[in-house]
Amino acid sequence: MATPRAVDYENASVEVRNVFDDIKSTRNSDDVNNFWKYLANDPATLRRTWESVKEVMGPGELPRVVKEMIYVAVSVTNNCGYCIASHSAAAASVGMTDKMFGELMAIVGMANETNRLANGYRVPIDPLFQ
Amino acid sequence: MATPRAVDYENASVEVRNVFDDIKSTRNSDDVNNFWKYLANDPATLRRTWESVKEVMGPGELPRVVKEMIYVAVSVTNNCGYCIASHSAAAASVGMTDKMFGELMAIVGMANETNRLANGYRVPIDPLFQ
Amino acid sequence: MATPRAVDYENASVEVRNVFDDIKSTRNSDDVNNFWKYLANDPATLRRTWESVKEVMGPGELPRVVKEMIYVAVSVTNNCGYCIASHSAAAASVGMTDKMFGELMAIVGMANETNRLANGYRVPIDPLFQ
Amino acid sequence: MATPRAVDYENASVEVRNVFDDIKSTRNSDDVNNFWKYLANDPATLRRTWESVKEVMGPGELPRVVKEMIYVAVSVTNNCGYCIASHSAAAASVGMTDKMFGELMAIVGMANETNRLANGYRVPIDPLFQ
Amino acid sequence: MATPRAVDYENASVEVRNVFDDIKSTRNSDDVNNFWKYLANDPATLRRTWESVKEVMGPGELPRVVKEMIYVAVSVTNNCGYCIASHSAAAASVGMTDKMFGELMAIVGMANETNRLANGYRVPIDPLFQ
Amino acid sequence: MATPRAVDYENASVEVRNVFDDIKSTRNSDDVNNFWKYLANDPATLRRTWESVKEVMGPGELPRVVKEMIYVAVSVTNNCGYCIASHSAAAASVGMTDKMFGELMAIVGMANETNRLANGYRVPIDPLFQ
Repeated sequence: MATPRAVDYENASVEVRNVFDDIKSTRNSDDVNNFWKYLANDPATLRRTWESVKEVMGPGELPRVVKEMIYVAVSVTNNCGYCIASHSAAAASVGMTDKMFGELMAIVGMANETNRLANGYRVPIDPLFQ
Repeated sequence: MATPRAVDYENASVEVRNVFDDIKSTRNSDDVNNFWKYLANDPATLRRTWESVKEVMGPGELPRVVKEMIYVAVSVTNNCGYCIASHSAAAASVGMTDKMFGELMAIVGMANETNRLANGYRVPIDPLFQ
Repeated sequence: MATPRAVDYENASVEVRNVFDDIKSTRNSDDVNNFWKYLANDPATLRRTWESVKEVMGPGELPRVVKEMIYVAVSVTNNCGYCIASHSAAAASVGMTDKMFGELMAIVGMANETNRLANGYRVPIDPLFQ
Repeated sequence: MATPRAVDYENASVEVRNVFDDIKSTRNSDDVNNFWKYLANDPATLRRTWESVKEVMGPGELPRVVKEMIYVAVSVTNNCGYCIASHSAAAASVGMTDKMFGELMAIVGMANETNRLANGYRVPIDPLFQ
Repeated sequence: MATPRAVDYENASVEVRNVFDDIKSTRNSDDVNNFWKYLANDPATLRRTWESVKEVMGPGELPRVVKEMIYVAVSVTNNCGYCIASHSAAAASVGMTDKMFGELMAIVGMANETNRLANGYRVPIDPLFQ
Repeated sequence: MATPRAVDYENASVEVRNVFDDIKSTRNSDDVNNFWKYLANDPATLRRTWESVKEVMGPGELPRVVKEMIYVAVSVTNNCGYCIASHSAAAASVGMTDKMFGELMAIVGMANETNRLANGYRVPIDPLFQ
C-alpha cells in the first residue's frame, strides 16, 4: 500500500468521474475538494459517502446553515483539522456570520466542559429526562 | 473525600441557594435538575458554570432550539449519558420535533464518520479553506 | 467467546494467583478489585498491566495523590465510569479532599472547554511554545 | 464569515484591550499568547473564558504546577496541539521538571490504556467504589 | 419530541418493515436487535445506515471476523456500551475466540496509550512515513 | 523543562542504547523511528513501552497485519497523526494492500457513525448481548 494521494479527474475511472460530476453539479462548482479526491482511492466508499452526505445535508427540516454548524460542532469536538476548515467554510457560504460562529464556539466549548463535570460528579439522570 | 451526592436546597448554604434561586427563576421551574445539585458540592464551580451557561445559552444570534441541538451534538459525540438526556429534553421543550432530532442524529453520525475518513486518508486542507 | 466474567482467586491459575497476591501485598488489601478479576481472563495482559501500573504509580517525583488525580483527569475526559469511580476512591484514600476534587473537576472542565476553543479558532502555536 | 485571525492590541476594542491588559498584569508579561488574540474575535467569550481561567487556575488547594499538569493531561488525551504546547510551557515555568513531565506522560498513557481495558472487558463497578 | 423508544415490527410502516425484513433475511435471524428498532424512528436513517453497514461489513478482502474485531476496537476506544456488547457478540459468532479477544483488547489498550505518548512528546512524523 | 527533542543513539545512555539495539534487532532495521527517540527522554517509559509493544504485537493468535490494522483503527479514531502514519506504514510492510486499507477505513468510519447513533438514540443493550 502506498501513502494515500489525491485522485484527479483525468486519472479517475468512470465510476469515480460519475461521482465527481454529481458533486460538482449538486454544488454548482468547478472542482471537488480534497476530501473526495482522497476517498476516490476506494470508489465504493467514495460513492457511498457522497450519497449519504448528499441525503443527510440536503433539504429537510433544518436550514442548511444549521446543518453545517452542527457538522462544525462535531468536528471541533473531535479536533479534525480538515473538517473544521471545510465545514466552517461551508457554513459561512450558506450564511453563518462571525457572530453566529462565535456563539457556536461558545456552546461547543461549554458543552465539552459540562459533559466532563457531569461525568466526574457522576450525576444520575433525573427521572424527568428518561 | 466522599462520593459526590446531591446537595438539596434545604441543606444548601446561602451562596448555593442564591444560584439555585436564579436557575429556578430564569427557567421558570420549581426545582433544579441533578447537574446543579451535584455541582453544588463546589459552590464556586456551581456559580461560575451557571453564569457561563446562562450567558452562552441566553438570547443571541442563534435560536434557543439551535443552541440546544448543538449541545446535543457535542454530548452525543462525547457519549455523556446525562447530557444527552438533559439537553435532548431541553431541545424538545423549545421546539425540537422528532423529525428535527432525526436529522440532528443523522448529521452527528455522518460527521463522526467523515471526520475519521479525513484523518485516515490524511487529507490536506485545500488552500481555499485556509 | 463468552461475555467477560470475573475470575475469582479460587478458580484462578497459579500465574493469575501470583499477580493477585502481588496486588494484595503491594496494596495491603484483602482482595483485588474487579478490574484485575476481569483482566485475569488474559493472564499475559493481567501481568503486563499490573507490572506497568505498579511501576508508573509507584514512588517517584510526583506525590501519589497527584498521580491519582491525573488518572482521574484522564478518566473523566474519556468518560470511563469504572475508572472514574475506582481512581476517585484511590485518590481520596491517599489524601484528596473534597476541595481538591472540586478544583480537579474545575480544571478538567475548563481544559476540555479551551481545548475546543483552540481547535475551533484554529489558533497557531506561538513561536515561544515550540 | 472570514477565517479566524488574531486580533492585535492596536486593532482591538476597549472591551478587548481591558481583558488583554488584565491578562498581561496578572501574568506579568508583555503580551498575550495567540489563544487570547483569537478568542478576541468574540469579546464576550474572551472575557468569560479569561475570568473563568483566572479563577480556576488561581491560588487554591492545589499548587499551580499541579494545576498546569492536570491541564496538560487533558490536552494530551484530547490531542489539542496548541494546548499541549502552551500548557507544557506554563507547567515548566512554574516548576515542572523533565522528570515530572516524564511521570505525567507515563500516567496519561497508562490511564488511556486502562480506560479502554475497563470498557472492553465491561468491568462492573465494585460496590466499594460507589 | 418524545424520548426515543423501540419501533416494533407490528407498529412499523411498510418502509421500516422492508428494512427489518432485509436485515432478518441477510442475517438469517428471527428478529432485529434494538439498534435497528430505535433507528426506525427515522426511516431514512434506518435505511441508509443498514444499506451502508450491509455493504461495508459484507464479503470483501477482510474476513468477517476481522471486520467485526475492527468494529469492536473503535467501539471500545469510544466507550460505546451498546456497540461493545453487540459487536463483541457478532465477532464471537463468526469465530473470535477468547484468546483473540484478549489480543484485541491488548492492542486497543496499547494503541490508546502510545497515541497519547506521541501526542504529549509532540513526535514529528519520520520522512519515511510520509 | 525543555521542549521534548529526539535523543539520538550517540547521545544516549547505555540503558537507552540497549533498548534501541533491541528494537533494531527485533525489527531488523538500521535505525529506530522518532517515537522511540522521543520516549528516550524518559528511559523507564522507553523500556516499559517497548517491552509492552513487543509482547502485544509479537506472534500470537492474530496475524501481524491484523494487529497493525487494529492499531490503525484506534489511531484514526483518536486522530493521532504520528500513529496513523507510522502504523499505516507498518501494516503495509506486513501485507496490507490498498483494498484492505480501503475496507479498514470504511469500517472505522462506519463504526464511528453507528457508535454515535447508538448513543444519541440511547439504545438499551439487548438481553442476548449481556
